[in-house]
Amino acid sequence: MLSLPEIQDLVSKKIDAFNRKNGKSGIYGPITYILALGGKRLRPALSIMSAQLFSDELEDAIHPALAVEVFHNFTLMHDDIMDNAPLRRGKATVHEKWNSNTAILSGDAMMIQAYELLSKTNTEKFPEIFRVFNQTALEVCEGQQQDMDFEKRTDVTLEEYLEMIRLKTSVLLAGAMKIGAILGGASKADADRMYRFGENIGLAFQLLDDYLDVFGDEAKVGKLKGGDIIADKKTYLQILALENAEGSNKEIIQYWLGKKPKDPTEKVRAVTSIFLELQIDKLVLEKVKSFHQMAMVDLAALEVSEERKASLRELAEQMLGREH
Amino acid sequence: MLSLPEIQDLVSKKIDAFNRKNGKSGIYGPITYILALGGKRLRPALSIMSAQLFSDELEDAIHPALAVEVFHNFTLMHDDIMDNAPLRRGKATVHEKWNSNTAILSGDAMMIQAYELLSKTNTEKFPEIFRVFNQTALEVCEGQQQDMDFEKRTDVTLEEYLEMIRLKTSVLLAGAMKIGAILGGASKADADRMYRFGENIGLAFQLLDDYLDVFGDEAKVGKLKGGDIIADKKTYLQILALENAEGSNKEIIQYWLGKKPKDPTEKVRAVTSIFLELQIDKLVLEKVKSFHQMAMVDLAALEVSEERKASLRELAEQMLGREH
Repeated sequence: MLSLPEIQDLVSKKIDAFNRKNGKSGIYGPITYILALGGKRLRPALSIMSAQLFSDELEDAIHPALAVEVFHNFTLMHDDIMDNAPLRRGKATVHEKWNSNTAILSGDAMMIQAYELLSKTNTEKFPEIFRVFNQTALEVCEGQQQDMDFEKRTDVTLEEYLEMIRLKTSVLLAGAMKIGAILGGASKADADRMYRFGENIGLAFQLLDDYLDVFGDEAKVGKLKGGDIIADKKTYLQILALENAEGSNKEIIQYWLGKKPKDPTEKVRAVTSIFLELQIDKLVLEKVKSFHQMAMVDLAALEVSEERKASLRELAEQMLGREH
Repeated sequence: MLSLPEIQDLVSKKIDAFNRKNGKSGIYGPITYILALGGKRLRPALSIMSAQLFSDELEDAIHPALAVEVFHNFTLMHDDIMDNAPLRRGKATVHEKWNSNTAILSGDAMMIQAYELLSKTNTEKFPEIFRVFNQTALEVCEGQQQDMDFEKRTDVTLEEYLEMIRLKTSVLLAGAMKIGAILGGASKADADRMYRFGENIGLAFQLLDDYLDVFGDEAKVGKLKGGDIIADKKTYLQILALENAEGSNKEIIQYWLGKKPKDPTEKVRAVTSIFLELQIDKLVLEKVKSFHQMAMVDLAALEVSEERKASLRELAEQMLGREH
């Protein structure tokens, strides 16, 4: 069995080979650029680990795992245009380095290449993983649309927010794990368990991300603390606080919404202090724990030896264990 | 056997059903909108006609034919953003009616839906038609990139121009026809013949389009005569004229390049008159005829009865017989 670092190394080498084949000219240049920016390669690693739960024969699982990573980076390339984001992993985004048209077109080509990678696998199982991939891909687009819609609304509920992040973030992890499971030879029940595992881990991961933005260790998180508060971003914390706050607390949160002071320290301090008073920090961490536990229930139920489950359990804890 | 109008009617009904299922909300609204703008549905019709050369059982060919139409309209949605085009078939483009972000995202979803339609077919043949579709899709993106690159260049050769329109326009017709042939049960040789048929008909069709812009009957063409000259668009005519012109003729063409007079009548008149002097009109029509003949060679070589070939021959003549 391959360890997590061995899987990450394998993914890394395959991405490098993909980049070398694509080269740097025409529509392929921006694809090579964004893929070379790095990242944790979490999705392909999860996909391959999911396959490895059921089989030591990983060959069939590798290209579809790369397909998920390429698709993920395609969504980043297009989302960055829509969000007008200047930076991605500390480097210029594709539409900044080239232009929007190039980012649109190279993104399109990247999605096609993701499908191409997906098809480099077991022919018999291809129609099935194709269906999973396709549904997932469409849901990711729906999630992005909801995210953009929410920016214009002031009445987003927690339930709606959870559904949005499920679509925008979780289903791709879930789909990646289900595809891995199918290619590893899992039963239908186990493949569905891996889907739910990915979904719940994804939700936990995103909520923890919301939490860390406000309460994380700035050095570890690697970005400005309270960035979401400064940007009035709708997060689980903000929505929960608006639902739970009363009287002057509610007024203070609403006072700061939409305000863009030159020095945002006071805004971050005031809102954070209300979050603490309302115990938003504890409530979010409880929710993270609850999604984590749901994922563990499905992992426990898998018809697979405990030994095989160990590294996936470990990765899940790594993903969620950064701060709490 | 179905006649061409019967096939077009079938495609039309299937697109309507697809639109009803998609509805008008969220990312699906713009997809329904652009597909409802109409068009000749040439690509799906060619794909189904190609299947019908080999079989009367068309069920498997229908969804992949729709996939090609949906993919084609996805490229229009994204190309319109890149070209900053206000109108498509006389109506507001998606990015004008909504905004660029919506056009990017709905276009992405539309490409995913094209793949979904493609997969609704004979499972055994799916991997093969998937490969054809995927390669075609990537080449269409490469063609669009070349088209954008050419805008910034002044030294585009006829050969480069033909390769660009082959990628941007012809390969999708070619791929559609090859997919139809495969699903109809054609031999490999016949499927390849249908690919080349589509490629050559596509090239002839695009060159005729260039010709008609300058020399066509305005009422029939449905757009301002000489629009390509006014916009300094690189067309087969312009490139050929620049290659063949000498002395004052060359100077006059170059004088007008980049000039945007309020009243473009004189520009169109001057350039058209040089085109005529250089016999560009005849040279282009000869080239159209030559591509048409090449297509007919492949059609003639098909291992299929003459009776079955008749309607495809008729459609090709309709496509190319508008003016000459």
